[in-house]
Amino acid sequence: MASMSTVFPKSTSFLSQPLTKPHKSDSITTSISFPPNSRNRSLRTLRVRAGLIEPDGGKLVDLVVSEPRRREKKHEAADLPKVRLTAIDLQWMHVLSEGWASPLRGFMRESEFLQTLHFNLLNLDDGSVVNMSVPIVLAIDDQQKALIGESKRVALVDSDDNPIAILNDIEIYKHPKEERIARTWGTTAPGLPYVEEAITNAGNWLIGGDLEVLEPVKYNDGLDRFRLSPFELRKELEKRGADAVFAFQLRNPVHNGHALLMTDTRRRLLEMGYKNPILLLHPLGGFTKADDVPLSWRMKQHKKVLEDGVLDPETTVVSIFPSPMLYAGPTEVQWHAKARINAGANFYIVGRDPAGMGHPVEKRDLYDADHGKKVLSMAPGLERLNILPFRVAAYDKTQGKMAFFDPSRAQDFLFISGTKMRALAKNRENPPDGFMCPGGWKVLVDYYDSLTVTGNTKLPEKIPV
Amino acid sequence: MASMSTVFPKSTSFLSQPLTKPHKSDSITTSISFPPNSRNRSLRTLRVRAGLIEPDGGKLVDLVVSEPRRREKKHEAADLPKVRLTAIDLQWMHVLSEGWASPLRGFMRESEFLQTLHFNLLNLDDGSVVNMSVPIVLAIDDQQKALIGESKRVALVDSDDNPIAILNDIEIYKHPKEERIARTWGTTAPGLPYVEEAITNAGNWLIGGDLEVLEPVKYNDGLDRFRLSPFELRKELEKRGADAVFAFQLRNPVHNGHALLMTDTRRRLLEMGYKNPILLLHPLGGFTKADDVPLSWRMKQHKKVLEDGVLDPETTVVSIFPSPMLYAGPTEVQWHAKARINAGANFYIVGRDPAGMGHPVEKRDLYDADHGKKVLSMAPGLERLNILPFRVAAYDKTQGKMAFFDPSRAQDFLFISGTKMRALAKNRENPPDGFMCPGGWKVLVDYYDSLTVTGNTKLPEKIPV
Repeated sequence: MASMSTVFPKSTSFLSQPLTKPHKSDSITTSISFPPNSRNRSLRTLRVRAGLIEPDGGKLVDLVVSEPRRREKKHEAADLPKVRLTAIDLQWMHVLSEGWASPLRGFMRESEFLQTLHFNLLNLDDGSVVNMSVPIVLAIDDQQKALIGESKRVALVDSDDNPIAILNDIEIYKHPKEERIARTWGTTAPGLPYVEEAITNAGNWLIGGDLEVLEPVKYNDGLDRFRLSPFELRKELEKRGADAVFAFQLRNPVHNGHALLMTDTRRRLLEMGYKNPILLLHPLGGFTKADDVPLSWRMKQHKKVLEDGVLDPETTVVSIFPSPMLYAGPTEVQWHAKARINAGANFYIVGRDPAGMGHPVEKRDLYDADHGKKVLSMAPGLERLNILPFRVAAYDKTQGKMAFFDPSRAQDFLFISGTKMRALAKNRENPPDGFMCPGGWKVLVDYYDSLTVTGNTKLPEKIPV
Repeated sequence: MASMSTVFPKSTSFLSQPLTKPHKSDSITTSISFPPNSRNRSLRTLRVRAGLIEPDGGKLVDLVVSEPRRREKKHEAADLPKVRLTAIDLQWMHVLSEGWASPLRGFMRESEFLQTLHFNLLNLDDGSVVNMSVPIVLAIDDQQKALIGESKRVALVDSDDNPIAILNDIEIYKHPKEERIARTWGTTAPGLPYVEEAITNAGNWLIGGDLEVLEPVKYNDGLDRFRLSPFELRKELEKRGADAVFAFQLRNPVHNGHALLMTDTRRRLLEMGYKNPILLLHPLGGFTKADDVPLSWRMKQHKKVLEDGVLDPETTVVSIFPSPMLYAGPTEVQWHAKARINAGANFYIVGRDPAGMGHPVEKRDLYDADHGKKVLSMAPGLERLNILPFRVAAYDKTQGKMAFFDPSRAQDFLFISGTKMRALAKNRENPPDGFMCPGGWKVLVDYYDSLTVTGNTKLPEKIPV
């Protein structure tokens, strides 16, 4: 569980890692395809920009109370009805507080919730729309609702009942769980990780309002220095003189297929006339399902990937995206993209089956693997973002390295999914040479060893790969 | 099952019925509330228009092959792979053929299907959007898909294998039934009438394409003369010199609460400066659930309501809306509204829980009764339509007539839902005086009598009201 701290450590990134090996992007076949001319895309000009892309709504939202007013706000909070946040609630509060969901200024009221559920967008007062595909809501139960009574404000408190925020001008409305789940995930099958963790047992009411967060959110897990806010990321990107920023969302270790794709994207952007494209390597830091590799180990693995020179630290910013993971496929990928606009990215790389997972009940993927990129390219409010879809990467046995899958010689390719990769590492088996840099692979093996050593009860059985 | 006919009977409407009684709208309290200033609504000016509202996309789609080319097209169709339509498929083909779904030109391809499912809209080439909230798709099974093979065109045939349309430039894609149901209805609970009728046992593929319909769709049920197309409705409305058209969608008999609301809406529009507001009383004519009153009986009932002078035939057009009913609440009400724009309506009356029903499994309504009007007022692509929400009407025991529910004296009101009304008529019990005109009520009683006489196996048990 995260807690608050008054000290905000100086932001750093993996940038400081030296480039120890030459990278090999030129030798790899790329398959980034720029999107066809749809309504949105035909309006795009991939011209070199003077500054970073504007945040949604024109202004980056910052909901953290300024230092001089914190004492006063804490006093106010002490006298308000209390709503205790879960770990996931806190992650969303973090997301909101730093403006990842700009222009949203707090947990959704019903009007915002309904627009999100039905249209994946928010209407702004000036007649424009911004994308908003996942509900950012706070559930309360009957008892909490009764305690709040007629109050127009509540204090949000952590697990120790310490006030961490004030929610103002509140609106309490029904929590239509089944409908929320159906419209967000496109299924109501039991076993959706986020649903089981955060919705099934949540209260029957939602409370929305304007948020004042009493201090910047810190987790004190040794990784806070990598949790750059959109504002801090924009500062860093401007400091580096980025004229294009391409974001890569991930919740898995980086393998060479990913890495080469990212390197090649930069080459393509340079060819297009950009002088200094910067990669935002942006692992998701909030809730993930039990069998995903935990954030701390993923961060170690990403560090190795930069140390081993698979990615170029000079042109890469590694930072943590504080959102929880919903595994909501085409609906969630819009959120992943939209949040990165707010962090300054104007290019977004989208792969096969983004934010997807296996169907929790049936023997198939939950989402059509192509729907994510299709939906993303049509999504209202994302017209300004350049979507870079790519084909699935696989291990090319004839070349002994990762390459993009060529269906005309399917037999030459070996598919190593996230599940398969984790199974290999778990079983201390090696992937084929060239799948991942050795340092990065060792981190994964160490992670699964650590589970055995500590007797972690979550350790799954050895499984065939 | 509908069939085709080459003769299109001259359009008529209940307009020709004489006004036999003075109407009493002035004595009834109204509660039409014009919508609050949201993004969309603030841009509206309720000024008097010179002509009718433009159809979506600027031009009314007409997919019926012109007379001189029908013979040639029928020859072409004879040689194409065949896809047999169900009754509901044919209703959608009817809807498409007459431009109710303008600018859609056929069953949806995947891009349109995905935009509908995720955003309830379609992006047009000019950068504008139109509302489109329900998938209009055609399902085929593996065998049909195999028969189509590489053909780029198919013939759509009726239950006797007679070609009735050609689908051109086809695209076949997966039918993600669970996701379609979840995103359209916000539930996947078993027992949704449309789902059970048209999706559960439908094929695993969808086929989209551009439609050429060989002849105007006719059902030969004695009601075709009331099935005015959007083009014919516009002609009728223009002939009458309508400067405002307010549409009322219904799938139930008209009671005095509805009637007084409609009459009062006209009065309000006159007050606003319109000179000749016309009511489009627009019963839904396609698939309805088993316990709804069938179209033919509803039409008899509506006729009585006009004959009895509850509605004014001079300012009312009664016509049949050919769409099937989905019972998909806030998602479907957008479709109901959007289709009426194409028929020339610029005002849309929306009540409590539009297109709603009881949850098929749980003991509650499927949708929040207020969500329909809220979602409608936020819906992208419906900004041009003036939404007229109204409160629920109930029988006011103190006045002995229908009035809008006043929560401050709840005990004075008797709620008579569609279900309750049907149960009363079924049991040959009379509703309170003033609930419905006697002629209209008699039609309902006759309907339930006819079920008994014919030994219709669908007749439900006598139920308490």
